[in-house]
Amino acid sequence: MAIRNALIKQVDEQLNNGVDGETIKKFTEELHPAIIADRLENLEPGKIYTILQHLDFEIKADIFSHLDKNVSRDLSEFYDDDELADIFEFMPHDDRVDLFRVIPEERRNSLLRHIEPEEREDIIKLSSYPEGTAGALMTSDFVRIFEEMTVKEALNKIRKVARYRETIYIAYVVDQQNKLLGIVSLKDLIMFDSKSIIRDVMFTEIITVKVDDEREIVASRLSEYDLIAIPVTDERDRLVGIVTFDDALDVAEEEATEDFHKTAGLAPLERTYRDTSIFELFQKRIGWLMILVFVSLMSSGVIAAFEETLESAIALAFFIPLLIGSAGNAGAQAATLMVRALATDDVNLSGWLNTTGREILVGIMLGLVMGAACWVLGMFFGGAEIAIIVGLTMVSIILLANIIGTLLPFILTFFNMDPAVASSPLIATIMDATGLLIYFWIAILVLGSF
Amino acid sequence: MAIRNALIKQVDEQLNNGVDGETIKKFTEELHPAIIADRLENLEPGKIYTILQHLDFEIKADIFSHLDKNVSRDLSEFYDDDELADIFEFMPHDDRVDLFRVIPEERRNSLLRHIEPEEREDIIKLSSYPEGTAGALMTSDFVRIFEEMTVKEALNKIRKVARYRETIYIAYVVDQQNKLLGIVSLKDLIMFDSKSIIRDVMFTEIITVKVDDEREIVASRLSEYDLIAIPVTDERDRLVGIVTFDDALDVAEEEATEDFHKTAGLAPLERTYRDTSIFELFQKRIGWLMILVFVSLMSSGVIAAFEETLESAIALAFFIPLLIGSAGNAGAQAATLMVRALATDDVNLSGWLNTTGREILVGIMLGLVMGAACWVLGMFFGGAEIAIIVGLTMVSIILLANIIGTLLPFILTFFNMDPAVASSPLIATIMDATGLLIYFWIAILVLGSF
Repeated sequence: MAIRNALIKQVDEQLNNGVDGETIKKFTEELHPAIIADRLENLEPGKIYTILQHLDFEIKADIFSHLDKNVSRDLSEFYDDDELADIFEFMPHDDRVDLFRVIPEERRNSLLRHIEPEEREDIIKLSSYPEGTAGALMTSDFVRIFEEMTVKEALNKIRKVARYRETIYIAYVVDQQNKLLGIVSLKDLIMFDSKSIIRDVMFTEIITVKVDDEREIVASRLSEYDLIAIPVTDERDRLVGIVTFDDALDVAEEEATEDFHKTAGLAPLERTYRDTSIFELFQKRIGWLMILVFVSLMSSGVIAAFEETLESAIALAFFIPLLIGSAGNAGAQAATLMVRALATDDVNLSGWLNTTGREILVGIMLGLVMGAACWVLGMFFGGAEIAIIVGLTMVSIILLANIIGTLLPFILTFFNMDPAVASSPLIATIMDATGLLIYFWIAILVLGSF
Repeated sequence: MAIRNALIKQVDEQLNNGVDGETIKKFTEELHPAIIADRLENLEPGKIYTILQHLDFEIKADIFSHLDKNVSRDLSEFYDDDELADIFEFMPHDDRVDLFRVIPEERRNSLLRHIEPEEREDIIKLSSYPEGTAGALMTSDFVRIFEEMTVKEALNKIRKVARYRETIYIAYVVDQQNKLLGIVSLKDLIMFDSKSIIRDVMFTEIITVKVDDEREIVASRLSEYDLIAIPVTDERDRLVGIVTFDDALDVAEEEATEDFHKTAGLAPLERTYRDTSIFELFQKRIGWLMILVFVSLMSSGVIAAFEETLESAIALAFFIPLLIGSAGNAGAQAATLMVRALATDDVNLSGWLNTTGREILVGIMLGLVMGAACWVLGMFFGGAEIAIIVGLTMVSIILLANIIGTLLPFILTFFNMDPAVASSPLIATIMDATGLLIYFWIAILVLGSF
């Protein structure tokens, strides 16, 4: 990588000092457009515009499709409709729709008037699918062939359109109504006899998604079957697009980020963290924080109810953070294990009983070890009675936290809710109140009987 | 999907009732091996063995490479070395090494003796790379061509080996020492004039990984550049393998799971949740729980130090869970936002100052709203003095939690540690002690001055 890093440094220097046409052209020949886009993103849109002016529309389009969406939106304002239309015509169909979605609405109409009718229809159609569906993810630039073609004819067709297609490694066989009949991989096409008829060599047991399927389904199916691309069909089984493997990677990353945010008790961000405004960050977080304040009132209620017990043995107060904290931690561990196992299909709803059984055993083991440690601490800081109370409480609440942390994600799944709502903060706050209740009960029991 | 589900049901029924050779052969022709493997996994290994006996080694190998590793390990015990060697020879090189790694060590040597020398060396070499590196992920079945070949010769070579290669969509150009000189995509090969020389048409600015690079690097580079496969080179720039896009998806999922586990304060599992034993689950969790018990002792210390203040105004105790809980929740939100933003390269180390500045503003906004809510609760449950104490404490600790939650992941990254160690439980436990300290300080200040 040493050579590449040196080159990138050179690119950065050149880009910052203003480049001549030859240099930037040389860069685009030698470097992946993703690298160029990555380096350009550090500059002002005005500067990026000046640099790109040295390049052909085709290469501009390549770089546009690798730029961060917000950068390409800002950059697009420097182009008049005519120029931008040219760039749009060279961009991969899915990337240009992504850009189309973020440019200002009043601009969209004037831009569309400058785009060729066929391409225009494509953009309007693709942008009509709701975000988060297969339709919004798919591209319409795939290779269409017909079943009566020979292998040779199919290969010729592929050769002709290859430059403008996102993937040519799978060709899609459709009938006159555009119904998907089968697929043929380029691998097979180059191996088969060139006179074979596509109908006889195509693969008909095809894995597809529907245009309104959620993007998680698309990503998991691409991943499960190791597909380069998956065809997307509409309600009448007509082929409307394909989703390629690189989109599955992006979706998987975004979905994981959403789940991370949910398990920390915050509403998922719609943009990247960098692009989220301070007020939005506040909005995404305040909701759960306020809800949890009210859940916490249960804990205050428990302490108020047992005020006398607490006043009679103030040493009990020392152990409150330790006990309810540990219960929250153990519960968060169990809940996160379940949320993730459910998200990756490692465990499913029908496994709830078996899983809870296992977690009860784990909870008993954790509880006994933690309880013993607490007993020692109790002996040291509070005496024999306190030690018994603290030790017994620890065993009970760790076990209970494990059961609640395990069951809640299953219960949410059962009611068709996202299990990630069983966030660590929620479990911790529930365990605060429950833990205190158990603590004071055991305290009264022990203090009464000694 | 209705048709497919019906077919799968039929498959399940047939597999359970014992199938004849014709039926299972028909299934393998019509269904993706991943689907067959998926259905077989529900059966006993002995039964799977009997069913597979109807099939050719090539199809057996296909199904083997899609079976869960633990299932294929158990299944492999039904085969003698000779049969298993045949299956190994037909399996993709990366999948068979994965299987090789899990079969018992004593079996490995006797198995190797039944495998052809060339393939044997390949298995030994691939299995020597440490887990988690590019070397352990890569496959050695790619297409090698030479720069003096014509496009036509290269296509002929690809045609000849296509059946046995994991991907043929990229061909790798090497010299006599096996040094990687360039790549050519099949897309380009079918478009170029068949008499062109590979040297003149190959792409030389190649994105590669080293054999000992971590698998996260491999996955992120495949994803960043939308590559079908990435070449892996050794310390002398010799081409030793390629990693294909489908592996990147698996790695991304496993890495996300690891980070989920870390942020919940548990050591990442080595296997899936389902395959992890109860004792292992206990081991992965007890470590952090015990560490956090000792961190919690700081909280006990704070309460003990302010015992008198607490006894003089026991109403202060009511609000302990609410205050330290909210601080923990806000801190966990901030830390999770940072851990994920760092993991997805949305924010990097140099952005720490800017990010902390933003989070201070967010913290002030959250603190003010939460503080106001707490003041109202304080008025209601404890009177004017308590209300002032609780409100002021809330503002201060929410702000502080936000700062600590934001900075800790950056500090860990700075010291080359995994930012995910800044787990929600750790932040919450730290905030317990800090929050209590602030609470009592403010209480003494207000109670003394009123």
